[in-house]
Amino acid sequence: MKIGILGTGSVGRALGTKFAERGHQVMLGSRTADNERARAWAKAVGRRASHGTFADAAGFGSIVLNCTAGVTSLDALALAGAEQLRGKTLVDVANPLDFSRGMPPTLTVCDTDSLGEQIQRAFPDTKVVKTLNTVNVAVMVNPGVVPGDHDLIVCGNDADAKAAVTELLVHDLGWKRENVIDLGDIRMARGMEMWLALWIRLFVRFGHPHFNLHLRVGKKPA
Amino acid sequence: MKIGILGTGSVGRALGTKFAERGHQVMLGSRTADNERARAWAKAVGRRASHGTFADAAGFGSIVLNCTAGVTSLDALALAGAEQLRGKTLVDVANPLDFSRGMPPTLTVCDTDSLGEQIQRAFPDTKVVKTLNTVNVAVMVNPGVVPGDHDLIVCGNDADAKAAVTELLVHDLGWKRENVIDLGDIRMARGMEMWLALWIRLFVRFGHPHFNLHLRVGKKPA
Repeated sequence: MKIGILGTGSVGRALGTKFAERGHQVMLGSRTADNERARAWAKAVGRRASHGTFADAAGFGSIVLNCTAGVTSLDALALAGAEQLRGKTLVDVANPLDFSRGMPPTLTVCDTDSLGEQIQRAFPDTKVVKTLNTVNVAVMVNPGVVPGDHDLIVCGNDADAKAAVTELLVHDLGWKRENVIDLGDIRMARGMEMWLALWIRLFVRFGHPHFNLHLRVGKKPA
Repeated sequence: MKIGILGTGSVGRALGTKFAERGHQVMLGSRTADNERARAWAKAVGRRASHGTFADAAGFGSIVLNCTAGVTSLDALALAGAEQLRGKTLVDVANPLDFSRGMPPTLTVCDTDSLGEQIQRAFPDTKVVKTLNTVNVAVMVNPGVVPGDHDLIVCGNDADAKAAVTELLVHDLGWKRENVIDLGDIRMARGMEMWLALWIRLFVRFGHPHFNLHLRVGKKPA
């Protein structure tokens, strides 16, 4: 599959590397066509990897992943272009975290809206699926760094798009199918992004980011 | 131990009943001294149970639990009185959820502050410990309704107060000690309250409230 990745940070590069290793063609997109980090990444990964602008990567991918910093995602996606994203599945991995006032960061949008919904509204002809934003990048591409069963949440308005993304999660990233929870439509992104407020504090408490939640569910009360 | 409980809703009554069953003396406090629900509760529970005003219950307890609706907690605690709460441990079980615009509720305070912190600031001579707010009342008083290991988070500024509250959680409510996570000082309440945004959506997804999170923690990366 052709996969476009927007963002050349640790998340975009790690996902891009993993998808290329798994046999996909991956283009890493950035603000400029000659991003040094993207070029170095493509050279290191080899023949299945390429790089270009946000618009190049969005046009290249049959699935596109938003791995930009959440505070800049809407700008980056505007550069990618609605036309390049039309009809496609866009996986929103970003969290709208503002680190400008130091730690802990705050969410730029919270509770009454979410970045996932903002993106879906800005790109109504694109199928936005929110997932992976609830875990650290090392856990995204290698769920086995966290012991036992642990869960990944997916949401979005389009069932087929969610199913296609779930196949990537299971077949390429190594998530167990039974640990992928479809929470509902894109409005559920509010809960998934607000989890970051707890995640960040748990990260400080545990001293590293190799952790995740596992949901334990009892019987429905009579 | 003498336990004062502020609030006569399902949370206050269930916790009060459980603590009385475990041999504690429990007074349920409400806005008025002649609250019908509190009287009926005390009669049903028996000799270890009594009821009174918020101030009566706060004065009665050596530990006091805030089980009022989060949007009214600061008002209720003002009625309870700083003098009655001075030097005591106050367990804040409440979530600042506003249901006035329907489902899902939103948080009245979020991300840059929390109800737990607001209470600690309003009552500087009281040791506020936030806990139990992350699970449904049925799970609070009977963790076994959720299968396997699952976790409860505690935060607060006073280590001794957290230790005393943890003893109640373990000995009286039945939580496993290894499943009680001390997240840090009262500022951690932000993350614990924001978890509710995800909790509410999981509640809708699962169709019932008998669930909880279990944190899986891997090794610290080298």
